[in-house]
Amino acid sequence: MKKPAKQDFPLTQIRRYLEPGPIVLVSSRWKQQTNIMTMGWHMMLDFSPALLACYIWEQNHSFELLRRSGECVINLPTADMVDTVVDIGNCSGAEGIDKFEAFGLTAEPARHVGAPLIAQCHANFECRLADKRQIRPHGMFIWEVVKAHVAPRPRRPRTLHYRGEGEFMVAGGHISRRARFKAQNL
Amino acid sequence: MKKPAKQDFPLTQIRRYLEPGPIVLVSSRWKQQTNIMTMGWHMMLDFSPALLACYIWEQNHSFELLRRSGECVINLPTADMVDTVVDIGNCSGAEGIDKFEAFGLTAEPARHVGAPLIAQCHANFECRLADKRQIRPHGMFIWEVVKAHVAPRPRRPRTLHYRGEGEFMVAGGHISRRARFKAQNL
Repeated sequence: MKKPAKQDFPLTQIRRYLEPGPIVLVSSRWKQQTNIMTMGWHMMLDFSPALLACYIWEQNHSFELLRRSGECVINLPTADMVDTVVDIGNCSGAEGIDKFEAFGLTAEPARHVGAPLIAQCHANFECRLADKRQIRPHGMFIWEVVKAHVAPRPRRPRTLHYRGEGEFMVAGGHISRRARFKAQNL
Repeated sequence: MKKPAKQDFPLTQIRRYLEPGPIVLVSSRWKQQTNIMTMGWHMMLDFSPALLACYIWEQNHSFELLRRSGECVINLPTADMVDTVVDIGNCSGAEGIDKFEAFGLTAEPARHVGAPLIAQCHANFECRLADKRQIRPHGMFIWEVVKAHVAPRPRRPRTLHYRGEGEFMVAGGHISRRARFKAQNL
């Protein structure tokens, strides 16, 4: 798998990659344990600071790593990685698997968090837990993105969007309606 | 605009339409006021009951209608409705506009909630507020979907996914990897 070269990306613009609703890979590290999980349940909450919420089932092995470390990296895979995305979602870190090794992924050090970046992904968003009070009632983690690494090309990556039942929608064409927007709504 | 014929749809399967992250139109009604807003910040929280969370800015005219009524309909528009989606997002119900009339949309009565369905949309999800405690700290509404109406064709609607800056990604092709999944993960 390719390892796209990335650049720093403005935190206030990360909606470009996350708001369309792609499947992401969440990497985590707590003490000597590292894990990756596939995640589809997330949404933006603010631009500045760049906040997002995600739902994580407490039965997931990553749940405790995320809760205890208060950190993660949200990695954006593209359609060529679909088998890896599926296979990561169908095994558990509780089985003692090193998912980086098992799936031929490269762990790169993050700048601000202990969890590693997945080099093969199109973008990597380093996150710190911004509000842990929603974890227990709803399984909801609210993250602040503190560093973004994005491959400048292609400008519109072919992201994966999960429909359930083993089926993914792949990002298609685009429509710009910029001229119809009020400036303050862009 | 077309008004697709719809059928009842199983609540436990609504992820098929919402999990890929489409832009939706949220209709609301409180006393004599009806409104529609364009929304992109939402995520699934559970299958059964069918729960979803969404973020709504308190400056939106819909915020109080949603909070006070505790109900809404989440309507799924398709790419042919892009201008309507943009124009609804760029005017405010506070200006006294009847958005159904202004945009040539048809309000149909819902079964379980006071807010109307938008007939032109591919699917309509009637929602009741399941948890209002997250509204004030985070602008987050947690909804239970209590009734789903979905057009059976096309099976894969061309939904709109917002990237910011006036640009939408349109749902493209699909990839099935059903055979790679463990049965309990489908």
